[in-house]
Amino acid sequence: MKEFFEENERTAPATDARKYVEVGPLDTKSGGRLPSVKVAYETWGELSPARDNAMLICHAVSGDSHAIGWWGKLIGPGKAIDTDRYFVIGNNLLGGCQGSTGPSSLAEDGQPYGSRFPIITIEDMVEVQYRLVQALGIHGLHAVIGGSMGCFLALEWARRQPLPVRKVFASAGCPRSNAMHIGFHETARQAILRDPQWRGGDYLPHKQPADGLAVARMIGHLTYLSPAAFETKFGRRMVETKEHSTCSLPVFQVESYLKHQGEGFTKRFDANSFLSISRAMDQYDVPHLKGAKSEFLFASFTSDWMYPPALSEELHQMALAAGCRSRHVIADLPFGHDSFLLDGEIQARALSEFLSNRSK
Amino acid sequence: MKEFFEENERTAPATDARKYVEVGPLDTKSGGRLPSVKVAYETWGELSPARDNAMLICHAVSGDSHAIGWWGKLIGPGKAIDTDRYFVIGNNLLGGCQGSTGPSSLAEDGQPYGSRFPIITIEDMVEVQYRLVQALGIHGLHAVIGGSMGCFLALEWARRQPLPVRKVFASAGCPRSNAMHIGFHETARQAILRDPQWRGGDYLPHKQPADGLAVARMIGHLTYLSPAAFETKFGRRMVETKEHSTCSLPVFQVESYLKHQGEGFTKRFDANSFLSISRAMDQYDVPHLKGAKSEFLFASFTSDWMYPPALSEELHQMALAAGCRSRHVIADLPFGHDSFLLDGEIQARALSEFLSNRSK
Repeated sequence: MKEFFEENERTAPATDARKYVEVGPLDTKSGGRLPSVKVAYETWGELSPARDNAMLICHAVSGDSHAIGWWGKLIGPGKAIDTDRYFVIGNNLLGGCQGSTGPSSLAEDGQPYGSRFPIITIEDMVEVQYRLVQALGIHGLHAVIGGSMGCFLALEWARRQPLPVRKVFASAGCPRSNAMHIGFHETARQAILRDPQWRGGDYLPHKQPADGLAVARMIGHLTYLSPAAFETKFGRRMVETKEHSTCSLPVFQVESYLKHQGEGFTKRFDANSFLSISRAMDQYDVPHLKGAKSEFLFASFTSDWMYPPALSEELHQMALAAGCRSRHVIADLPFGHDSFLLDGEIQARALSEFLSNRSK
Repeated sequence: MKEFFEENERTAPATDARKYVEVGPLDTKSGGRLPSVKVAYETWGELSPARDNAMLICHAVSGDSHAIGWWGKLIGPGKAIDTDRYFVIGNNLLGGCQGSTGPSSLAEDGQPYGSRFPIITIEDMVEVQYRLVQALGIHGLHAVIGGSMGCFLALEWARRQPLPVRKVFASAGCPRSNAMHIGFHETARQAILRDPQWRGGDYLPHKQPADGLAVARMIGHLTYLSPAAFETKFGRRMVETKEHSTCSLPVFQVESYLKHQGEGFTKRFDANSFLSISRAMDQYDVPHLKGAKSEFLFASFTSDWMYPPALSEELHQMALAAGCRSRHVIADLPFGHDSFLLDGEIQARALSEFLSNRSK
């Protein structure tokens, strides 16, 4: 189990393959307005002459456009999401901080939006993705694919169908943020809001509430692993260096790992983006999938205590109730929620078959 | 399920029934020294002429001496821990902030210990309890009883036997803090350490790092409930008042609950006490119970994801391997870790029988 963690990192390497497109002004569902929205995206593979092999990948709460990096187990030449066959699009979501318009973007007055960034929803993020796909000259998607929060976007594509979507793959997802999800999010948000550097959301570009954001990220990481994964990866082992904690006690590896994850996150992520995106997650709620015309594949993981199989099963049953073809693969893997990133076998097999199958 | 929560509060009412005893200087296991240690305690019931009916109750991470308050389901006249039959002792643990010596106590120079408070261990806490019990003229305990962290103290009494201990009841416990426990603790500690008001531990008495401590407590509460309890207690229901969050979104009840718990905690608890006690928990590790002479009863709860039944089962097996009588009762209750406080039936039945049974 250990090697799975070592060969995989949540943090994608920096890439200069990003492209950008302006998709115009956006009136948000909340009644706010962004005078112009920019989208950072990347593509892999070639769009077929019939323009019918495009796939959109939707990232999780802290992701970016570099899907081939953070989902390298599934995306690439010869892999389940085969870039030799498909035209694969990754984009940074609205509200993010990796190239797309978000709270840290500059408003028309040359200052970051900060507290002026409107409340956004999953629907708004999908609207922006829709404009991106249109800008690429694509009028139907072979698949929309997402993991964790990305499932919300994939579901919204299926529900709303701004363009036809043949297939939807949702891994480690759920129909809505439940009370426990919201509780973890709110605790993380409070860590940010109570950091004096947050300043009501209007911090200086290079003085973000890094301490609060680090704690928020540590809270996130607590939910990404299963109890078994915590034991295998760390147990009660100590850090081997002479490093000591502030209280002169030896440092447990799990403490060092979480601090490292928290602090590293503050170098690549914006605190207001976390607030904005986590709130969008909390608001989202899929009551049913009536009207959806896609074929669905759901994957879930037995050790994922935050997004357990029962939640994906609820979505699977919604899809069946809507008259859609659907399959739910439950993978018995011990890595917790991170399984959706770490598993390149069970998901890959089901996904490969699902994407190739032209029965619908 | 809901009424269970409403009729029970983690926070015990203030009491003026506290008594105090000075138990002398303490050389801590860490090599530190406290020139004098004071213990706040309460008692209920009458010590029998044979002085053989005394029980010691060990509190959880944020508890106090008022065991009859926070464990009112089990302690009282006619209850499982029957104050008509037993002489029941509750005390605030070393390192605490409810009357016993802890980091917020005044050192000899009249200033709070703060950063000068030595690293303490579960063993040190038990040493102080031992001195308290001796000071009360008691030379053997009918039972030592603890829930959650309190189990560590009960186990240490059984292992070390500074005085004979006939029976040990440990509810929702574990043999050691595992990586997940340490991870949650460390994340909570980081919330405190990164609050600028913490000032290296030397904050002013009325200017503690309340924001960090509130977040730390919210993290704790996330682990006290089961996913099912979160759903029953809150679901996606909104707060009914006009109160709005900082971002003008309606407030979920679970958000309001967690903030209320976090903020309330800062009025009754000291941030350095949390650091001190949670570190003591992290260090504790019971490899076996060889040499123990007590009879054991363990209780655990199916929905307790932080202290699941498997951990109590490990202790039960250790007790059996040590040749002790032992029983492990697994209660199928939905309240999560808080079940140990909320359950007045399954535990009470097993405990009542266990305490009355004079077979050993």
